[in-house]
Amino acid sequence: MTELKNDRFIRALLRQPVDVTPVWMMRQAGRYLPEYRETREKAGSFMQLCTTPELACEVTLQPLERFPLDAAILFSDILTVPDAMGLGLYFAEGEGPRFERPVRTEQQVRSLAVPDPEVELRYVMDAVRLIRRELNGRVPLIGFAGSPWTLATYMVEGGSSKDFRTIKAMLFERPELLDELLETVGKSVALYLNAQIAAGAQTVMIFDTWGGALTPSDYCRFSLKPMERIIASLTREHEGKRVPVILFTKNGGQWLEAMTDTGADALGLDWTTDLADARRRVGNQVALQGNLDPSVLYASPVHIREQVAKVLASFGKGSGHVFNLGHGIHPGIPPEHVAAMIDAVHELSLPYHQ
Amino acid sequence: MTELKNDRFIRALLRQPVDVTPVWMMRQAGRYLPEYRETREKAGSFMQLCTTPELACEVTLQPLERFPLDAAILFSDILTVPDAMGLGLYFAEGEGPRFERPVRTEQQVRSLAVPDPEVELRYVMDAVRLIRRELNGRVPLIGFAGSPWTLATYMVEGGSSKDFRTIKAMLFERPELLDELLETVGKSVALYLNAQIAAGAQTVMIFDTWGGALTPSDYCRFSLKPMERIIASLTREHEGKRVPVILFTKNGGQWLEAMTDTGADALGLDWTTDLADARRRVGNQVALQGNLDPSVLYASPVHIREQVAKVLASFGKGSGHVFNLGHGIHPGIPPEHVAAMIDAVHELSLPYHQ
Repeated sequence: MTELKNDRFIRALLRQPVDVTPVWMMRQAGRYLPEYRETREKAGSFMQLCTTPELACEVTLQPLERFPLDAAILFSDILTVPDAMGLGLYFAEGEGPRFERPVRTEQQVRSLAVPDPEVELRYVMDAVRLIRRELNGRVPLIGFAGSPWTLATYMVEGGSSKDFRTIKAMLFERPELLDELLETVGKSVALYLNAQIAAGAQTVMIFDTWGGALTPSDYCRFSLKPMERIIASLTREHEGKRVPVILFTKNGGQWLEAMTDTGADALGLDWTTDLADARRRVGNQVALQGNLDPSVLYASPVHIREQVAKVLASFGKGSGHVFNLGHGIHPGIPPEHVAAMIDAVHELSLPYHQ
Repeated sequence: MTELKNDRFIRALLRQPVDVTPVWMMRQAGRYLPEYRETREKAGSFMQLCTTPELACEVTLQPLERFPLDAAILFSDILTVPDAMGLGLYFAEGEGPRFERPVRTEQQVRSLAVPDPEVELRYVMDAVRLIRRELNGRVPLIGFAGSPWTLATYMVEGGSSKDFRTIKAMLFERPELLDELLETVGKSVALYLNAQIAAGAQTVMIFDTWGGALTPSDYCRFSLKPMERIIASLTREHEGKRVPVILFTKNGGQWLEAMTDTGADALGLDWTTDLADARRRVGNQVALQGNLDPSVLYASPVHIREQVAKVLASFGKGSGHVFNLGHGIHPGIPPEHVAAMIDAVHELSLPYHQ
């Protein structure tokens, strides 16, 4: 495989010296880009876009053509895994993702299949291989998956939820059944991420979007522990290189110490945690990724620059910081504002690495 | 005025000894009660219900007829204040609250009126007086208001928002203008809460529903400081009694130390913070209110009892805890489940006060 021409992102995740702070954005391949909307249109549906490797590759690379980003992230959806487990994912217009066959009973939990990533999720692995080839060492490729708890919320609720009523009833009434479900989902996610690594993903990230909706003890049992088990079973070296793991629990700022002990190389942070505080709390154990409020990108370039400066100053000197938004970029952001943010990160971070 | 027959709630807020842990629920007068839905129907509209003192009093007392709650809370809405400031509140069917005249420009901010609570919000004060008379000392009455930041989000966005796009643009682009808006809203809220105290509210609570959407430094400047200024100007003694102040920032668990220094008597906690941790962090400076996950009430009574026991154990021995949900009760909860929770709090907390 080709050597990486720009390995800042990997180096920062491993807390090795870098020239400037690397930057990428969650959902950087997405609706804020006119070229993405065009490809999405051409694909016909969101699922078609996800399941066609050539199109997934095309949209993965689009933001890199525009901006000097330091990493690419596979274009896909966290719900491809439960779909491959047999739940029947579909997108109802204006309603978000839904499953034809939600998982609620003991029998439904027990009959869940652990998919073979090179069979049921072959289209993802093909996309990873294709993207790696097309990237040709320009920047590293990030693979990803949803956390077992996050995936389980959709699987049990049958779609998005505000209050997680059904899965929380399961949590309080039948915690062992939920453990069992999370075990099966966890196995599927571990296989899936290892297959992405084998196919060429140079970093993997676990998105725990809904762990922050739990109490601290429920978070520990039902979200953190399943993620810890996944991390323990991941391939950590591939092609002779360390494959860093990033763990991101949205609204998880209160639990950084516990997250630090999972074996992850880096923690993702939303914007409600101060980077200086977080750095003190996690010590030298992990790198940090984040944490500009995505709403900053609605402001004008001069104000974006100010807020980027604040985030960089809050992390301070030295390596171990990957700049990112605290959550996915909103669809209404003008692409020029993204350019302003990325330039500001590279320019203003120079003094922190001298 | 009549002496309080049950003053557990006030005593716990002041960290004085109590026989059992007091309990009430955010939104205890609400849609989960069939008798509430009946009165709401009779009123014709939600605003009619809020603005008719007899009806507001009726629904305030309804949960007390059913359950041995330790406090009543005024039935009203946080948006009555911006409505009285001239913004024209209305409720579009299925869309939530909206304002006819959102506040966005410098001129709009400058021309905002600070309402006289006994004039523009007279209906609220009449409701407070009526409820106090009807309660006849049974339990204390809680008055409340939204935090300036929380009210400002609705005032600037023109209604509910997911990403607070407009007010955050103001925050990043014109922070001094936002300061000015928050100053005017803060003055209105302080007058409003003092008028509620004069009319008979025996505790007041500030609801900061959206402070948790900010970065730590923005939270401090745009949400916490305006609340601190309000607290500094509140009447703290009335009818010869201390009037406790409760501060509640949803998703504010990372900032308890800062909240402790505002002069509030108690902090409200959602369920993402462990009470034992919180108690260690705030020391003996403030009482704590919370923090059962409202979704627990979907589970069966035996499991509700288990989760109540966990919350009580996590606070531990001694006074300074008011049991509550971590957020408002959901509309779909069966009233029998509420009864199970309240009984469990009173029964299971006995040993912690011996």
